[in-house]
Amino acid sequence: MKNQEKYLKEYLKEREKIESKLGRIFNKKNPDSLYQPSEYGLGSGGKRLRPFLVLISAKAVGGKYSQVYNAALAVEIFHNFTLVHDDIMDNADKRRNLPTMHLKYDINTAILAGDNMLGYAYKMLLKDCNENAKEVINRFTEAMIEVCEGQSYDTDFELKKNVSIPEYKVMIAKKTAALAEVCCSIGGLLGGGNRKQIDALTKYGRNLGMAFQIQDDLLDIMGDEDKFGKSVGGDLVAGKKTFLFLLALERAVGEDKLMLQKVIENKGIRKNQVKKYKLLYEKLGIIEKAEKEIENYTNKALKAIEIIEVQDSRNMFEWLANMLIKRKT
Amino acid sequence: MKNQEKYLKEYLKEREKIESKLGRIFNKKNPDSLYQPSEYGLGSGGKRLRPFLVLISAKAVGGKYSQVYNAALAVEIFHNFTLVHDDIMDNADKRRNLPTMHLKYDINTAILAGDNMLGYAYKMLLKDCNENAKEVINRFTEAMIEVCEGQSYDTDFELKKNVSIPEYKVMIAKKTAALAEVCCSIGGLLGGGNRKQIDALTKYGRNLGMAFQIQDDLLDIMGDEDKFGKSVGGDLVAGKKTFLFLLALERAVGEDKLMLQKVIENKGIRKNQVKKYKLLYEKLGIIEKAEKEIENYTNKALKAIEIIEVQDSRNMFEWLANMLIKRKT
Repeated sequence: MKNQEKYLKEYLKEREKIESKLGRIFNKKNPDSLYQPSEYGLGSGGKRLRPFLVLISAKAVGGKYSQVYNAALAVEIFHNFTLVHDDIMDNADKRRNLPTMHLKYDINTAILAGDNMLGYAYKMLLKDCNENAKEVINRFTEAMIEVCEGQSYDTDFELKKNVSIPEYKVMIAKKTAALAEVCCSIGGLLGGGNRKQIDALTKYGRNLGMAFQIQDDLLDIMGDEDKFGKSVGGDLVAGKKTFLFLLALERAVGEDKLMLQKVIENKGIRKNQVKKYKLLYEKLGIIEKAEKEIENYTNKALKAIEIIEVQDSRNMFEWLANMLIKRKT
Repeated sequence: MKNQEKYLKEYLKEREKIESKLGRIFNKKNPDSLYQPSEYGLGSGGKRLRPFLVLISAKAVGGKYSQVYNAALAVEIFHNFTLVHDDIMDNADKRRNLPTMHLKYDINTAILAGDNMLGYAYKMLLKDCNENAKEVINRFTEAMIEVCEGQSYDTDFELKKNVSIPEYKVMIAKKTAALAEVCCSIGGLLGGGNRKQIDALTKYGRNLGMAFQIQDDLLDIMGDEDKFGKSVGGDLVAGKKTFLFLLALERAVGEDKLMLQKVIENKGIRKNQVKKYKLLYEKLGIIEKAEKEIENYTNKALKAIEIIEVQDSRNMFEWLANMLIKRKT
């Protein structure tokens, strides 16, 4: 238990550092019309999990945080770039309880500031690169392309009647897990890890990312409205084909199945119907199945990093995975 | 004269190769919803000047075309990514006589396919990188950021009453010349050039880019409507603060000045007024001044590459610069 506190403290300390470093990247740069929105796009008070993954991955292979701070900032800038463009595409009006960038400014600004943020992600990443620049940038770029592909599949799924669970997993592997993976692999590479260590970190990141996304789907229906910052059941209201929904659709028969198919036909449900669907999910055992799935991915992640020699690093990875599983937001 | 034909032939041959290689990059990739638009976004039948700059820069320092084909594709993919996003921002409906991507598909698709194209630009560039990956990617990334800044200044200028000529030059240096510069510098780097050669190529590219953009402004008013593919005087109709317009505003007095200020106040002119403004430009000596400016930048470009040892390469750079000055589209 004492150890748990130690890791939490470490995370909070580094999160604060990351936050403060992020705040300086776009500060007072010209033109204002580009850099003020870019700064806004970094959000504030986020979990900053991705940069933390970079830091602890570097340390796990014997590197130092100081070798990878810029890379840590890079993955966070990249992540926020994807949010800025996704929010335009999703027509979202809020992000972390603030207006999304295209509403705070306008769509053109959000497109351009997003592009610029992506440029800065590369710029920051390059600062920490040395001989292995090619591999590091390559992995980052492949993740970037996967994220675009994942977003495209996600959009396709909105119009597609039949989405299978494997198809859904391919989508979240690209849209979410590819970035978590690359946080760990480039952290390891820049920290000087060997091939075996990099492979382990790669697996940890990818599986953690999968667990994270399914947890996200689960939280949408199980979350605490106040803590979650968005309405419970928002995915159902929006008619999104989440892991839970697709699983329910696969399992349901008769009336239950019709009820789920209606969500697709009507492109969503009313807010006051959320409870009814939550009960259906429970009846079908979807909640437990999702929890089991999250546990499986988490176990795979933890299994992968067993080869990491430093006990303290293994513990940190374990703490982080458990925190993510137990998170409420 | 015979040499002129030789260089033109070389350019046309390589342009065809580039065109065919471009056609294969996104072909048959999944998801369709991402890669078909990405392919569309590469356009077809463009001048492909930027990839050609990469090729001849590599050759000028003793490298081979075959060492830099992927980098050549990268700059063209990058260029087309900027066009896709710019067209959304400018609300443009045509590009090379075809519907712009956001009209052919939709805005969301154009944002995402643009992002993906940028990812592929890095991916292709990385293929040709070796030990100097860090410097090559760094230069490319700095150009990418400059292009965003230039686009942002350009947008600012729309609302700004007083834009000075130096401010305008900063804008085009970023929006246009930075990419031309990086084509030459990365071509040189990947071709194995030494510091002196890279510096020369960098200067050539930057100045050529400046000449190219002012020529573009000039063509808008002097162009042959049929060949140019867009209406003569389109910049005036749109109320754009081009090099010519800003120069005219600086030089004009009395009635003439009022006539120009009206363009700003009314955010453009009617199509049937273009002739009147063209006459004013001629009266104020703006056309000659613009031609002189283009010549100056071209001379600076050519002066820079005097240190290139290979005569044939110097001739090629000269041929290209002259072709750009004399171009009608």
